[in-house]
Amino acid sequence: MVIVGAGFGGLSAARALANAPVDVLVIDRRNHHLFQPLLYQIATAGLSPADIAAPIRGVLSSQKNASVILGEVTGIDLATREVLGHNAVRDGRVGFDYLILATGARHAYFGHDDWEAYAPGLKTVEDATAIRHRLLVAFEQAEMIDDETERRRLLTIVIIGGGPTGVEMAGAVAELARASLATDFRRIDPRQARIILIEASPRVLATFPESLSTAAAQSLQKLGVEVRLGQAVTQCDAQGVEVGGERIDAATVVWAAGVQASAAASWLGAEADRAGRVKVNADFSLPGQPDVFVIGDTATLTDAAGKVVPGVAPAAKQAGVHVAKVIRARLNGSPAPAPFRYLNWGNLATIGRRAAVADFGWLRLHGTIAWWFWGFVHIFFLIDFRNRLAVMLNWAWSFVTFKRGARLITGNPDRQG
Amino acid sequence: MVIVGAGFGGLSAARALANAPVDVLVIDRRNHHLFQPLLYQIATAGLSPADIAAPIRGVLSSQKNASVILGEVTGIDLATREVLGHNAVRDGRVGFDYLILATGARHAYFGHDDWEAYAPGLKTVEDATAIRHRLLVAFEQAEMIDDETERRRLLTIVIIGGGPTGVEMAGAVAELARASLATDFRRIDPRQARIILIEASPRVLATFPESLSTAAAQSLQKLGVEVRLGQAVTQCDAQGVEVGGERIDAATVVWAAGVQASAAASWLGAEADRAGRVKVNADFSLPGQPDVFVIGDTATLTDAAGKVVPGVAPAAKQAGVHVAKVIRARLNGSPAPAPFRYLNWGNLATIGRRAAVADFGWLRLHGTIAWWFWGFVHIFFLIDFRNRLAVMLNWAWSFVTFKRGARLITGNPDRQG
Repeated sequence: MVIVGAGFGGLSAARALANAPVDVLVIDRRNHHLFQPLLYQIATAGLSPADIAAPIRGVLSSQKNASVILGEVTGIDLATREVLGHNAVRDGRVGFDYLILATGARHAYFGHDDWEAYAPGLKTVEDATAIRHRLLVAFEQAEMIDDETERRRLLTIVIIGGGPTGVEMAGAVAELARASLATDFRRIDPRQARIILIEASPRVLATFPESLSTAAAQSLQKLGVEVRLGQAVTQCDAQGVEVGGERIDAATVVWAAGVQASAAASWLGAEADRAGRVKVNADFSLPGQPDVFVIGDTATLTDAAGKVVPGVAPAAKQAGVHVAKVIRARLNGSPAPAPFRYLNWGNLATIGRRAAVADFGWLRLHGTIAWWFWGFVHIFFLIDFRNRLAVMLNWAWSFVTFKRGARLITGNPDRQG
Repeated sequence: MVIVGAGFGGLSAARALANAPVDVLVIDRRNHHLFQPLLYQIATAGLSPADIAAPIRGVLSSQKNASVILGEVTGIDLATREVLGHNAVRDGRVGFDYLILATGARHAYFGHDDWEAYAPGLKTVEDATAIRHRLLVAFEQAEMIDDETERRRLLTIVIIGGGPTGVEMAGAVAELARASLATDFRRIDPRQARIILIEASPRVLATFPESLSTAAAQSLQKLGVEVRLGQAVTQCDAQGVEVGGERIDAATVVWAAGVQASAAASWLGAEADRAGRVKVNADFSLPGQPDVFVIGDTATLTDAAGKVVPGVAPAAKQAGVHVAKVIRARLNGSPAPAPFRYLNWGNLATIGRRAAVADFGWLRLHGTIAWWFWGFVHIFFLIDFRNRLAVMLNWAWSFVTFKRGARLITGNPDRQG
């Protein structure tokens, strides 16, 4: 069987099939699994790429029935039951009996694809290091320049989208400017940097209870972030953005406003929702194709409890495990598992060094206690023991010293890792 | 005063001028100081770039008389006493009273500059991550391919140059293939990779005593490296290399064979040796220009003991401290310090996980004890406390597990960090 994509969904499916009587072939265009929820820490120079990424081969090294190929999938032939691809995929075709597509999502610009050049999103290691590059270079240029208007532009950072990524990014940028860089320059004061978070809806963290949205916005404001709610961005260009009829000149603009599923729906000729997510059956199989499954951010499903499964890492992992169970049951001839039900352990978002919001349904936390909880959860779920240690060390160090270890300006801003 | 270059020489000069009655302006085209002796560990996925690089601003943050600008210097105007540059250098000109040039060296291809594309060297973070990319991708492609000849080419790694960089690189590549990657593939056995170290002279580590050269070559052979001595490379191309009339097809070729000083000599119109190093006075000043100093890999000097100062990090640091003393003495009107004398604490090179050679003049070590010594020395001299901890952690982890944490294939091989 073939699994395309080694994100949270694909990798958890592969691992859950260890010792099952199948050969599992994992295809990914990257050689590493990435802990995407912490990407914003790479973008803000708190962590190095290797701290939150693990080579897929390494993760599956001891799983005898699993093999990995680095390859770009370009389509699926349902008639011949083959995955089509190029580069590393041998002969351009790989046959499958069972297929799991877990190819994730990219950012969506709602019809303004030209904005991507000015307002990059945050999905890959390269995205994150490109944003880190822009951010750090803007401070360097501000230190050098004499023109006051341009200096203000260089010291203005706009984050578009008030979901967890946008909120966490805004908090981390604020701390980078207010603490880590504070005393490193001589002509500018990085604490004067203007950091603006723009959200089109009336509140940040729309999936959280309203009280926590308010708490998060207040925490951001305490860090000096301007939070602009109910205002949509109408223009992005090389100089900055336009929002609510107002022009904001900004050298660094980050897009955290929307996602679009990968191309799996078009590969399959399958029905999809507006965000491109494939509509799947209750067991994540494709309608009419019981051996083809779509999971994670690439699929949309209303679970057995009547709730829409959210596009978050825990949901993708649970889906991977569920599909593995479905396949195991079929291979063993045993009855299919109970219909999928997403188990929500809680929602978490952090705002800088000491604040976070946590929603467990029965319990809502904000402030320092939520932050500590957030730290433990994120370290616990980092996939590889070594990464956990490295991240803990980095965090402990920057917690004590306010410094950030990964403040490197390297390579070309548009192409790096 | 102005210091161009924040390598070992420039940074040690800047720090040695703390509290001196001068404003010290440090100009570098990179925002980070790089611990170059460990670059090969980035190239072989043992460490992350941020582990061996420290932001220059951070290093000098608390030194009140120092400021830093990110800029590319393009020349020196000795008549107007200005440093010329572009980008971040304001108005393209910065005046100086004292000037220290510490701009380092690049690899030299001995008139075959076209070889650089096929046999990249190892001087910057981008160099190292580009080599890491080639190396890891070659194993991935070998896993995929059916053609046996091409697979052998993909699994052949050639390192040209048997100095410390070449020897350390060959040892690290051997361990990557024989240990870290050993069980990660299904169709190839990375332990079968062919690793060849080519040195034109009759022995590796030519600056060490002959007994240690022999010990180093034996340690490499024990790790499975083919050591070819007394053979010069006569051709590098996309398929591999030609050496001693023999063709060796290799997907990864690394150049560690020679260095060429930076352009400082031509900026100054100064006399230089064949490697482009400026011939300086006994106090590192430029003949006829007592306020202009050239140090580190950019200068050549025979010291007060009659020995040629070598192009190594400790010598550059000592030169930086010496020039700072010369300038302090002039500012204070006190007598000039005693002529420079390079204090050689010893030469070290490591071969893989457990072997090294160390030459202290009065004592020569090889094997495990030299390796431990090497580890302590390198960690001790890493410029920033946090980096020391991170490197120790990474090493401890890979020592115990044989794994390598930074095995990421990211971005474009030619442009990344």
